[in-house]
Amino acid sequence: MKAAIFRAERQIGLGERPDPTIDAPTDAVVRVVRGCVCGSDLWYYRGVNQHKVGSIGHEFIGVVDQVGDAVTDLHVGDFVIAPFTFNDGTCPACLHGFQSSCVHGGAFGNGDIDGGQGEYVRTPFADATLVKVPGSDFTDEQLASFTALSDVMCTGYHAAVSAGVTEGDTVAVVGDGAVGLSGVLAAKLLGAGRIIALSRHADRQAVAKEFGATDIVEERGDDAIAAVLRLTDGVGVDAALECVGTDQSIETAAGITRAGGMIGAVGVPLYEKFEYKTLFWKNIGIKGGVAPARQYIPELLEHVLAGEINPGRVFDFTTDLDHVAEAYAAMDERRAIKSLLKVSDPS
Amino acid sequence: MKAAIFRAERQIGLGERPDPTIDAPTDAVVRVVRGCVCGSDLWYYRGVNQHKVGSIGHEFIGVVDQVGDAVTDLHVGDFVIAPFTFNDGTCPACLHGFQSSCVHGGAFGNGDIDGGQGEYVRTPFADATLVKVPGSDFTDEQLASFTALSDVMCTGYHAAVSAGVTEGDTVAVVGDGAVGLSGVLAAKLLGAGRIIALSRHADRQAVAKEFGATDIVEERGDDAIAAVLRLTDGVGVDAALECVGTDQSIETAAGITRAGGMIGAVGVPLYEKFEYKTLFWKNIGIKGGVAPARQYIPELLEHVLAGEINPGRVFDFTTDLDHVAEAYAAMDERRAIKSLLKVSDPS
Repeated sequence: MKAAIFRAERQIGLGERPDPTIDAPTDAVVRVVRGCVCGSDLWYYRGVNQHKVGSIGHEFIGVVDQVGDAVTDLHVGDFVIAPFTFNDGTCPACLHGFQSSCVHGGAFGNGDIDGGQGEYVRTPFADATLVKVPGSDFTDEQLASFTALSDVMCTGYHAAVSAGVTEGDTVAVVGDGAVGLSGVLAAKLLGAGRIIALSRHADRQAVAKEFGATDIVEERGDDAIAAVLRLTDGVGVDAALECVGTDQSIETAAGITRAGGMIGAVGVPLYEKFEYKTLFWKNIGIKGGVAPARQYIPELLEHVLAGEINPGRVFDFTTDLDHVAEAYAAMDERRAIKSLLKVSDPS
Repeated sequence: MKAAIFRAERQIGLGERPDPTIDAPTDAVVRVVRGCVCGSDLWYYRGVNQHKVGSIGHEFIGVVDQVGDAVTDLHVGDFVIAPFTFNDGTCPACLHGFQSSCVHGGAFGNGDIDGGQGEYVRTPFADATLVKVPGSDFTDEQLASFTALSDVMCTGYHAAVSAGVTEGDTVAVVGDGAVGLSGVLAAKLLGAGRIIALSRHADRQAVAKEFGATDIVEERGDDAIAAVLRLTDGVGVDAALECVGTDQSIETAAGITRAGGMIGAVGVPLYEKFEYKTLFWKNIGIKGGVAPARQYIPELLEHVLAGEINPGRVFDFTTDLDHVAEAYAAMDERRAIKSLLKVSDPS
């Protein structure tokens, strides 16, 4: 089959992978309809992180193409959303709703395990991992939103849930990438009364406002802290969603959160200096991590199908598998917030 | 008046301080009935931390002796519990229930401001700070429990509340000092189903069991982590209460908490190595800080008055103000879990 292959820093292109087959009776093979590029994919693309040579992309939706003998809930032809990690559904972490920490789980597109940027994906623990989408004849807009549920929307939602965002809260979102924008949408969905988006790009500000941002702060670092404190009468926000992962972004989150407030942290930590004890004296808590997308997809899918949220709006660049290198370049050069890959037709 | 005075490392003794008077119309002067020594008092006693020469002790209960013109809720003769920090009751931090972060607040016994280890204490914002205790003719046991509400019980409770302990949870408490033991009692009060106390001292284990501990782990460090994981089928606990503040204790807390669980951290951070990002990959959150005792005293007082909890049980050494040096030495030498000071009679 055709699949995007990581070869070396900035060397991503179309290649060949073996057609996946059912290895375990709980496997399914999914024909990919849409894949996409994650902000975290840029790290190995740019050489910041290491990545094994091989398959890439952890986000995909598609149609069930084959099922193992032990798969009972899914059938060939079902339309499914894959969370970016697979999970067995039975271990204590799964039962606690943290499927991304499943003891038998793993991530798609890690070099060896099939990636979502390819034609087919062997999916372990298919019944537990995949979420069936009811209905058919989905619009392109719906397909984009389903794809967003694979990771980015669930990750933004995880930031808001981890920070305990509730009705009427004042929330600030640090980071205006696709995750940060999803965090804005998540805060709105959870009833936040005021949402301050930290963003300095006009196109992202526009999406943030569409998603529910009530205020935009363009400053960075200490100036951003001062600006948010100005907006909140010196108090700070109930919850800060940290959607970047750098020293500056987490220090900003710490500086704008009120005494007793929470930081929801989903930016994969690149920080070197930030320590928890800086929060202790202000009674600020922090929670987050790798989002248990599988836990959130069903409820968020209902909102998508009801037309209440449109998380696919974060995609502003679309191409196909043949041009996957372009999808990376567009994000790398900040021409795109997030790139969608049309891999096959839904039907 | 007579008051304990810090002079230098290991030099604490009875001295003289000016009789406090009403400085601001919102002040009250409290005649101290009971004071006590906090684990954190040992830091400057031992020279680990700096402390200004002067008044000490941040925990006290007593009888209102004088009130300023603007004090309306309290009257001379009222029996009161003081939280270890004073607060105005009107700033955003106070309104959010984090009075220990009050913008106009401060701590008792900091060298200049009167300490609870003395005969009288000028208490700012008396109406907002002090909690009146209904009734009279209190027993010694009740007086000890009221004194525990001044800090240590509220701090243990803050650990459990910050960790979100709820009905049926499995909780581990790291630290068997008076705060850790109070954390056990707090977890029990919040409905924890299983409470693992990490303790290697027979006297403290006994109090822990009295307070509700179901299991005792005597190991430390990696061995303690292994022991708690063994007790929890390899899963870890829903909540770990970190009541020490060292690198080892917080690493233990991190190591024993399940994926998606919470650490309630109230041990004042002495740690140098611990960083939040070690928690990120397990989706473990951490919250805590300087306890807003004023927020918790009313509800905990009800439980004490109803005879449901007996937090004063942590006091196992009692002396008077003249022998305050002994109260410190007993704790320093681990002859006592916590020392109570009888300063005057309640009536």
